[in-house]
Amino acid sequence: MLINHSSFFLKHQPAIFPRILGHEAMGIVESVGECVHEVVEGDTVIPIFLPDCGECPDCLSNKSNLCSKYPFNVTSWLGREETSRFTDVNGETLYHFLYVSSFSEYTVVEIARVIKIDPATPANRACLLSCGVSTGVGAAWKTAKVESGSSVAIFGLGAIGLAVAEGARLCGAKRIIGVDVNQDKYEIGKKFGVTDFVNSRNIGDKTVSQVIIEMTNGGADYCFECVGLSSLVHEAYASSRKGWGKTVVLGVDQPGAMLTFSSFDVLLGGKSITGSLFGGLKPKSDIPILIKRYMDKELQLDEFVTHEVDFEDINNAFDLLLEGKSLRCVIWMNK
Amino acid sequence: MLINHSSFFLKHQPAIFPRILGHEAMGIVESVGECVHEVVEGDTVIPIFLPDCGECPDCLSNKSNLCSKYPFNVTSWLGREETSRFTDVNGETLYHFLYVSSFSEYTVVEIARVIKIDPATPANRACLLSCGVSTGVGAAWKTAKVESGSSVAIFGLGAIGLAVAEGARLCGAKRIIGVDVNQDKYEIGKKFGVTDFVNSRNIGDKTVSQVIIEMTNGGADYCFECVGLSSLVHEAYASSRKGWGKTVVLGVDQPGAMLTFSSFDVLLGGKSITGSLFGGLKPKSDIPILIKRYMDKELQLDEFVTHEVDFEDINNAFDLLLEGKSLRCVIWMNK
Repeated sequence: MLINHSSFFLKHQPAIFPRILGHEAMGIVESVGECVHEVVEGDTVIPIFLPDCGECPDCLSNKSNLCSKYPFNVTSWLGREETSRFTDVNGETLYHFLYVSSFSEYTVVEIARVIKIDPATPANRACLLSCGVSTGVGAAWKTAKVESGSSVAIFGLGAIGLAVAEGARLCGAKRIIGVDVNQDKYEIGKKFGVTDFVNSRNIGDKTVSQVIIEMTNGGADYCFECVGLSSLVHEAYASSRKGWGKTVVLGVDQPGAMLTFSSFDVLLGGKSITGSLFGGLKPKSDIPILIKRYMDKELQLDEFVTHEVDFEDINNAFDLLLEGKSLRCVIWMNK
Repeated sequence: MLINHSSFFLKHQPAIFPRILGHEAMGIVESVGECVHEVVEGDTVIPIFLPDCGECPDCLSNKSNLCSKYPFNVTSWLGREETSRFTDVNGETLYHFLYVSSFSEYTVVEIARVIKIDPATPANRACLLSCGVSTGVGAAWKTAKVESGSSVAIFGLGAIGLAVAEGARLCGAKRIIGVDVNQDKYEIGKKFGVTDFVNSRNIGDKTVSQVIIEMTNGGADYCFECVGLSSLVHEAYASSRKGWGKTVVLGVDQPGAMLTFSSFDVLLGGKSITGSLFGGLKPKSDIPILIKRYMDKELQLDEFVTHEVDFEDINNAFDLLLEGKSLRCVIWMNK
């Protein structure tokens, strides 16, 4: 089992402890339960926190990736039964995390959240598609449907923002503007197709939206908020092109945070606002496509992995993340 | 010249007086300026407050109807020059209104705001397409792109809301839910395809969104706010289907009013919010289509006209509107 991680939920989500964290991973099926025929022992799989039951109106529709049979709930642990499959050495319950709990040699994941993939996929690349990178790529590809020749502005060039750039690049965007407070992100962004950079700490009295409107002669066709700040969603919306600009919200703000827009701006602007969970991707059908595009050397995944550590050093991985030094740190369970 | 009217701008918009009101009309071209070749003397036309220059990036795009060559401004009078063509008997300036000023025997309208139509179109029907009815029909057809078999909820069954119902009916919506405080609107709405009605004063402790979510088993595919209340936009958004619901803002709230949404709801809901000015219609190309659909007996217009008065009785028309007795009152200038 191989694991990747992100730290947001550690700090901001309603939590229950003790629990086993980790939700981005790649692994091998050890055994399956009754009635499970989709995968068999030995299959290479990645877990996805977002279910894809294949039966409900949402999973059957091409417009939704929000399974209504097993509704996603950020506070849940195992899933439909709200039970646990883990106990500690004293027999006390250990809770699951986001239905995956991959910081473990073995875990139990529902079949609706397991995706069989090409076993030739390198383990330290496949795991990236379990959440963040897929979310960003999917947001450009599926949610925004970025068109060839269009302009894109990305607020926040963390792994998700960079993945949006990668998705926009694959969609043929002509101009990809990265916005960040860290100037180093420009060079990193260029690997993923970023063509222009706005350091929001270095624009004098102007707002980011004023700068982007000037750069694009009216605003970007597609704007993505990848930080999780309501104020930045507002700025992204202001940066989007009158008449057709689309703003996609990817960042997770604090619970209770509100997004506020002028009623007149919404009415008269012809713009739209939408959210994107897991980039609008339908796990069972879209993840294999991303895997194939990686294997075909179209989708870039290698560049997201800045560090790899053994499981014993998992705390170093968290330190790297908190210090802002890593994009994605792969944690090897059994190398 | 034949005139129709709406009263919103009288009360709520920044205004300059004295001015000649009226922006929904049908008329005959009396003369054209230099360089105008699109229409000639004697042509039957309708004025549209929203320009369609045919040259700018917006008019050339199929994604926008917000001309960038002559930006729409609710406070403007004649248009590109901000001048007037009217004077009173003492030679003092009379200002235009929404670039049209049709409460007049003669008016001057820029060619970008004039649509040549089939002269066989009845005058007291063509004028309806100048603003409100087109806005509603277009919002369903062009902005929301309502699909056959889908569910629609319309907040406010005034003329615009009823026109949304008519547009949704033409698009093949299976269920069209009208929401209003006036029970009489159910019977009126049925003429335009309304299949269900929610009287928001008669639902006990429930919210409208709770009622609609129950009625539709999850929310309506498309929700339209046609009143101009920010709180109602919020309720429309809450009534829209998780995963793909689209909320279209048509109502004009007070200047300064804000629309507020939970960041989590936007992120996790998979829904979108968009505004619609003139229903997303491109005047020069889409209005002739609506005219043809009326002449082909597909689009219903007759049912919108509840009253007709001569110009001398124009104040009666306003009284009818303020008393809530009329949907559209046609005012005849030269019958």
